[in-house]
Amino acid sequence: MISIPTERKVLSENDRLAAGIRKALEATHTLSLNFIGSPGAGKTAFLERTLRMLPRGTRAAVLTGDIQTENDAIRLARYGYPVRQITTAGACHLDARMVENHLIDWDLEALDLLLIENVGNLVCPTSYDLGEDGKVVILSVAEGEDKPLKYPGIFRKAELMILSKTDLLPFVPFNAELACDCARSVHPDIEIIKASSMTGDGFGQWMDWLERRMQGKQILAEDFAAAIQ
Amino acid sequence: MISIPTERKVLSENDRLAAGIRKALEATHTLSLNFIGSPGAGKTAFLERTLRMLPRGTRAAVLTGDIQTENDAIRLARYGYPVRQITTAGACHLDARMVENHLIDWDLEALDLLLIENVGNLVCPTSYDLGEDGKVVILSVAEGEDKPLKYPGIFRKAELMILSKTDLLPFVPFNAELACDCARSVHPDIEIIKASSMTGDGFGQWMDWLERRMQGKQILAEDFAAAIQ
Repeated sequence: MISIPTERKVLSENDRLAAGIRKALEATHTLSLNFIGSPGAGKTAFLERTLRMLPRGTRAAVLTGDIQTENDAIRLARYGYPVRQITTAGACHLDARMVENHLIDWDLEALDLLLIENVGNLVCPTSYDLGEDGKVVILSVAEGEDKPLKYPGIFRKAELMILSKTDLLPFVPFNAELACDCARSVHPDIEIIKASSMTGDGFGQWMDWLERRMQGKQILAEDFAAAIQ
Repeated sequence: MISIPTERKVLSENDRLAAGIRKALEATHTLSLNFIGSPGAGKTAFLERTLRMLPRGTRAAVLTGDIQTENDAIRLARYGYPVRQITTAGACHLDARMVENHLIDWDLEALDLLLIENVGNLVCPTSYDLGEDGKVVILSVAEGEDKPLKYPGIFRKAELMILSKTDLLPFVPFNAELACDCARSVHPDIEIIKASSMTGDGFGQWMDWLERRMQGKQILAEDFAAAIQ
């Protein structure tokens, strides 16, 4: 008997579900981003400030993953956008089925932007496509500069790296340029924004990036609509 | 056909190998500790300062795990103790087979202390017994206070929590007492040491803990030797 190894079977089932999510988000012109970083990299704080700064009228929603607790959903719900917590009950990553289950009965037509905060983990979430348009990796200056070399998978797959907690730079032995060089050595085209969710440093640049990406998505979605006519 | 799920088979094979390692370390009176924390929690810096401060004559060695790079082994080798890097080539945790393979041709009789630095990850390493005497979880004050609630598995299994990077406390919105309460709420008996690998704060207490634990191991090992005679 020749059987497919379990891990490959799981990933291929995940890819099938992710393709369905991607198709649905394409049809509704919803930009979706998958945020990945260590526990403590500052993912939730970054999304909190993002929600605070979104231009009035942006139709955004958030899915936030954790192994246990609804803490992050409670933090994120304060900004008036729909938020759902995905508790994975032990699993070290989000998968497409969890995302699909938590999108049920949300009207995607009414969403321009879906922000997905993955479980805090630089490794396992990398392998699971969630049907998102792009991955964003968050690395904080309280970590080591060589993290992109040690965890190359996610830095290769992410289109954007947020170097977070830049307000701590005067107090930590962290060389930001070295960290950027490490990221570019595994992914020469990665975009990088240095930001602090405490001071707001870098958020202008991040908002510009997000706006450009959302506009791009609308144009792509129009092409998609024309192609299927 | 009734078959054991792959994950359970893997874990039970791991437990068998871990039991072998534990027996060998028991016979040679070697205390072994498995350090687990997020990427960037400060595991390597903590072990560097530990090696610098060990009393002269301590017979210590280090195994350090990463997905890629030998960077940590290079950092740790500067202190004159034997160090081996385990690169997991993608795996998000160490397992007992990797430890066994890297202990080959080390004379365990000549070791009092084996420090094992796991892959940076608060989730997956928790499930893999490495044959160690105890797990130590490292949480940095640059992370969130509620990490023990979000990742309860490792905080339940660890006998000691190191609250690291305390030198950053004046610059981060982190309530150390709240973090300790969160840890105790999932594991009431967990011991906690607050430490800074930059300033050395807390290292006296950590060295006392380590010495007590090594002495305890010698006594246990003598009981073990008597029992098998």
